[in-house]
Amino acid sequence: MSSISRLVRFLARDGLTYYGDAILPPGVSDISKATTARVIKGDIFDRPYVTDQIAEVKKLLAPLAWEDIKTVRCLGLNYEQHAKESNLPIPKYPVLFYKPVTSIAGPSDDIPISSMAQEGEGLDYECELVVVIGKEAKDVPESRALDYVFGYAVGNDVSHRDWQLKRGGGQWGLGKSFDGWAPFGPGIVSSKLINDPGALNISTKLNGETVQSSSTKDLIFGVAHAISFLSQGTTLQPGDLIFTGTPQGVGMGRRPQLWLKDGDLVEVALQNVGSCVNRVVYAKPAAKL
Amino acid sequence: MSSISRLVRFLARDGLTYYGDAILPPGVSDISKATTARVIKGDIFDRPYVTDQIAEVKKLLAPLAWEDIKTVRCLGLNYEQHAKESNLPIPKYPVLFYKPVTSIAGPSDDIPISSMAQEGEGLDYECELVVVIGKEAKDVPESRALDYVFGYAVGNDVSHRDWQLKRGGGQWGLGKSFDGWAPFGPGIVSSKLINDPGALNISTKLNGETVQSSSTKDLIFGVAHAISFLSQGTTLQPGDLIFTGTPQGVGMGRRPQLWLKDGDLVEVALQNVGSCVNRVVYAKPAAKL
Repeated sequence: MSSISRLVRFLARDGLTYYGDAILPPGVSDISKATTARVIKGDIFDRPYVTDQIAEVKKLLAPLAWEDIKTVRCLGLNYEQHAKESNLPIPKYPVLFYKPVTSIAGPSDDIPISSMAQEGEGLDYECELVVVIGKEAKDVPESRALDYVFGYAVGNDVSHRDWQLKRGGGQWGLGKSFDGWAPFGPGIVSSKLINDPGALNISTKLNGETVQSSSTKDLIFGVAHAISFLSQGTTLQPGDLIFTGTPQGVGMGRRPQLWLKDGDLVEVALQNVGSCVNRVVYAKPAAKL
Repeated sequence: MSSISRLVRFLARDGLTYYGDAILPPGVSDISKATTARVIKGDIFDRPYVTDQIAEVKKLLAPLAWEDIKTVRCLGLNYEQHAKESNLPIPKYPVLFYKPVTSIAGPSDDIPISSMAQEGEGLDYECELVVVIGKEAKDVPESRALDYVFGYAVGNDVSHRDWQLKRGGGQWGLGKSFDGWAPFGPGIVSSKLINDPGALNISTKLNGETVQSSSTKDLIFGVAHAISFLSQGTTLQPGDLIFTGTPQGVGMGRRPQLWLKDGDLVEVALQNVGSCVNRVVYAKPAAKL
């Protein structure tokens, strides 16, 4: 749906911020390895064009800016093995929740842990396939749903299990909505390069050790079904993100349970897309409410 | 925080859409009665100015456009009597969920009921005080929280109880997120005109009959506390909305239960602000998923 292959947004060595089409060395598919990109001009979702100007990447940012993103939808319990490790039944319908745009961060940004998020326990990682909607979609049948996809990225649906499950009155928002708790990237691979989003390896490493390793083959509700379902009576807008759920291996599902600590390095990776590597950084204690 | 008293957005008799400061006859406080307004220029949240140009109101629109609104937060179970009618304990912390921006509609728009929302039963109304954030707020203490309020409106958190409670895997998103399911308005009354948002009468009429009648005095978590709490580790942006919960009297809480039907007229009203009057309109049957 556009001539872009791998959308990145980056701070360049010239000090400016650009959108670009990442240039990768032969044989490399991890966008986080891009050191140069062709600069993109125009509206990303409305006839963008890739110029001949090549810029040097200093730091990859979230591939879309907050202003580009309207709504961040997330699906819960969407991998069979993860539903099992959570001791919960396979959902009959996609389980929908939201994260605010302010939770979106870049592929190498720190994950800030505020005072409130330092209370209780249960700081956890969740690697997820992220779908980026490219054009307005409403009441879309499953057979045409992938036509509305701009591309795919990987994200981390960072979660605080106490705030999510014990203190939120049953709603997951409180434990998943803090600033910077949805790093995604490292770029967005065009849907024309990924024919089947339902056959991609997805994984998480914590301080270099693999803790989640699965495939989007284990998705309960695949990408096309999810888009069709979420679009019923509801307009999906260009720039909307769908975090499609996480596979087994989250800290909550392990025995003993495994929680993120200050200084931990979390890497989420998706085949043909690349990885986001984010450090957990506890904020200094602030005044209580 | 601005020179605007009652912000409206409207289609004018000249065919154009304006932001304006509503002009009300003496003794009238319901903004929906405004027939003229002083046109406002500039960014609503960054030094807007009220001009001398007076425009005639043909139709009031949602007082903020989708582009003005970043995140719509909602609180659940936030009135004592409503928690009781729901047979649920008083929450210890604010219960947070979200609606997408595409659910936002104007004070006289129809509430469209899509095929999916016609399944099952439990179409319900919820009158709510809506807080509009005026400037960026993060880690704000309760004592200063009201400084971040642009103003107040009334809204209807339209809900489908089956999709919300029975088919959503426990998350409320599915049953509250359809297009047009968050009408609000009729305008936004500046916080400088409402000293105490915790002492306003709030009510719903269904086809002219009062079904909810309460006061924001019954709020469990008041406006200042909610803003402070929601801002911990989280940036609230100008244009963010907070639907603060609904009082007792929802259809689900009545015996027998009372569900909205095709053609019903729902009016939600807030003291010193005015009312939104929206008709429930069933969409014609469409193809199933």
